[in-house]
Amino acid sequence: MTLRVAQARYKDWDRCDLTYVELDAGTAVAGVTTQSLCPSPEVEWCRDAIPLGSARALVVNAGNANAFTGHRGRAAVEAIAAKVANHLGCLPSDVLVSSTGVIGVPLPIDKAEAGLEAAFVAEPCGWEAAATTIGTTDTYAKGAHASAMIGDTRVNLVGIIKGSGMIAPDMATMLGYIFTDAAIDPALLQQMLSAANKRTFSCITVDSDTSTSDTVLAFATGKAGNAPMTSMDDAGADAFHAALSDICRQLAHLVVRDGEGATKFVEISVEGAVSDESAHRIGLSIANSPLVKTALAGEDANWGRVVMAIGKAGEPADRDRLSIRFGATQVATGGLAVEGYDEAPVAAHLKGQDIEIGVDLGLGEGRATVWTCDLTHGYIAINADYRS
Amino acid sequence: MTLRVAQARYKDWDRCDLTYVELDAGTAVAGVTTQSLCPSPEVEWCRDAIPLGSARALVVNAGNANAFTGHRGRAAVEAIAAKVANHLGCLPSDVLVSSTGVIGVPLPIDKAEAGLEAAFVAEPCGWEAAATTIGTTDTYAKGAHASAMIGDTRVNLVGIIKGSGMIAPDMATMLGYIFTDAAIDPALLQQMLSAANKRTFSCITVDSDTSTSDTVLAFATGKAGNAPMTSMDDAGADAFHAALSDICRQLAHLVVRDGEGATKFVEISVEGAVSDESAHRIGLSIANSPLVKTALAGEDANWGRVVMAIGKAGEPADRDRLSIRFGATQVATGGLAVEGYDEAPVAAHLKGQDIEIGVDLGLGEGRATVWTCDLTHGYIAINADYRS
Repeated sequence: MTLRVAQARYKDWDRCDLTYVELDAGTAVAGVTTQSLCPSPEVEWCRDAIPLGSARALVVNAGNANAFTGHRGRAAVEAIAAKVANHLGCLPSDVLVSSTGVIGVPLPIDKAEAGLEAAFVAEPCGWEAAATTIGTTDTYAKGAHASAMIGDTRVNLVGIIKGSGMIAPDMATMLGYIFTDAAIDPALLQQMLSAANKRTFSCITVDSDTSTSDTVLAFATGKAGNAPMTSMDDAGADAFHAALSDICRQLAHLVVRDGEGATKFVEISVEGAVSDESAHRIGLSIANSPLVKTALAGEDANWGRVVMAIGKAGEPADRDRLSIRFGATQVATGGLAVEGYDEAPVAAHLKGQDIEIGVDLGLGEGRATVWTCDLTHGYIAINADYRS
Repeated sequence: MTLRVAQARYKDWDRCDLTYVELDAGTAVAGVTTQSLCPSPEVEWCRDAIPLGSARALVVNAGNANAFTGHRGRAAVEAIAAKVANHLGCLPSDVLVSSTGVIGVPLPIDKAEAGLEAAFVAEPCGWEAAATTIGTTDTYAKGAHASAMIGDTRVNLVGIIKGSGMIAPDMATMLGYIFTDAAIDPALLQQMLSAANKRTFSCITVDSDTSTSDTVLAFATGKAGNAPMTSMDDAGADAFHAALSDICRQLAHLVVRDGEGATKFVEISVEGAVSDESAHRIGLSIANSPLVKTALAGEDANWGRVVMAIGKAGEPADRDRLSIRFGATQVATGGLAVEGYDEAPVAAHLKGQDIEIGVDLGLGEGRATVWTCDLTHGYIAINADYRS
């Protein structure tokens, strides 16, 4: 496989904004896309292509999301897929396409086609150039690496991602791509990616908003030469699944750390819920609470706001069994503040960049961990002062 | 009925913070309370007392929410009710109690009792003094008035409310009280209040957060001398219901207008949804979206963010049937931006203080209206810099 970038000039800027990845014949693909009911035509295209299981190319456009553009947006995606299919001699459905940027403006087909022609003849580039080119409001290029042993064969995974709000529809959509040389059946890859997504990308939130374009795709070229994996019972499947989950977690955390205006990375662990799903919903209720997030920005051990966020989650909770900790320090237990708890380690913990909040509901065995960032003046500045 | 205020000194401040309302014998009561599953003991007390249907007094404490305080918080509520019941010769369950302020600190019983003793002998005061005394972070006292004809008898309704975040658990809980001289059966009053609540208080949001203490109570003394209303079919019941809904809407809007950091009052009207409930959920998804709210703060006609918020609501929506307007100007229709729409009236509308967003889903007859405010640096300043 080879990576190339080019200038399609989707905006009036002097940077590469089209990423083109050629994949080896026989590459398997899996993917997860936004839950939005108003998705972009790129998302609709990927939703149709992913189940076919094979891919030969990926095209990512930055600067124009092509969302809410009706049939003209769809035509742009079809034109891109057709042009790449013609170039490679593959099916259009073997070409995966993503776009990120402003909404409501159809992606200009002439710019996309000229950009592709430039990309076809460009020198191959490295991961960092690709990670930079898919980015928009990102403040740094985001990549991660993992590996696993399958029998005697080491397989590698490399991932790149963009996103800084979770997820602003204009310029901060989350687009993630994972590439591996492992040989794996696409159905199994999909099963593993869906499971990993549930514990990683689905557990991060910057501002509770959901993009019309969020997409994570995994490509497996099979070039490592391992015995192809087709079921979770195959040798090495557990190790590969763990590596895939690991790289997804790394990429998800990078997005949160680059959250718009973020100054803190916050891990919220919920246990003692009636189920894992219930714990997940309670965790997200805390992570999405503007009052909790502003308290964290203010380095304030305001556990009352955590109680509030638990109470509004609509999940089973018993006020008088609740325990809450900041870092390693229990601040409330059994429905009461811990009298005379030592405030010094809590204050020190909250002054750091990595914050942990622990909640024990005391009801059952359900648990979940979610990640978010604080809500600061920086978020307001980025989003109130951004012009559509 | 008489209103009195006193200084219980729940905080180290020099203002009245205890409101005491004596109600005539035979006063009917109805109420709605927070959906929170971690409510304050005051909310639990009111939930038990409201169904009994009668009330003789209301006590509101400002400066201490008494929430998440276990059995000691409960004991404080019981002590207040017992003291007032002893003073008036009524049942403790005839005494409704609310508290608002910091969480996690049991309400000091000695201060409450001393405050009540001062209130019992204080000069009666007017509505504005009561509205001021129940307030915390509110920037102004909030009251409203309505009236209705029941047969030949004019009945009056007066309401006071506090709240500025919707609803910060620390100091910005929403507490609303409506007083009328109408004669009405408590079950009918409850039916009308619940219906009005659904269209008013349940349709406002400042920051999506829900207090552990939110409470709205309605008291009807019966002193107007109208023929008592016991069913919606009774003469004047429609007029009274309309007046009650009107005063609830006025009070709800006052809370939004005083939203923490708010500079804009935003009305979001959704029509064409598959049901009223679906329209309501879509409206709240838009109203709670940080990206929509920051765009409004920036006076930016960013309808892409409205599409995003509709898409994430999880309700039936078809991108290609969506229409969106700002003020009277259609900016998107049938899944596309309206080409060449006149930006001048949109820009002028967004510069105003009262903003209207209209969404037509084009699917059915469901409709709902919700109200919110913008999300500004002021909100961050109030909540990140507030110390618990």
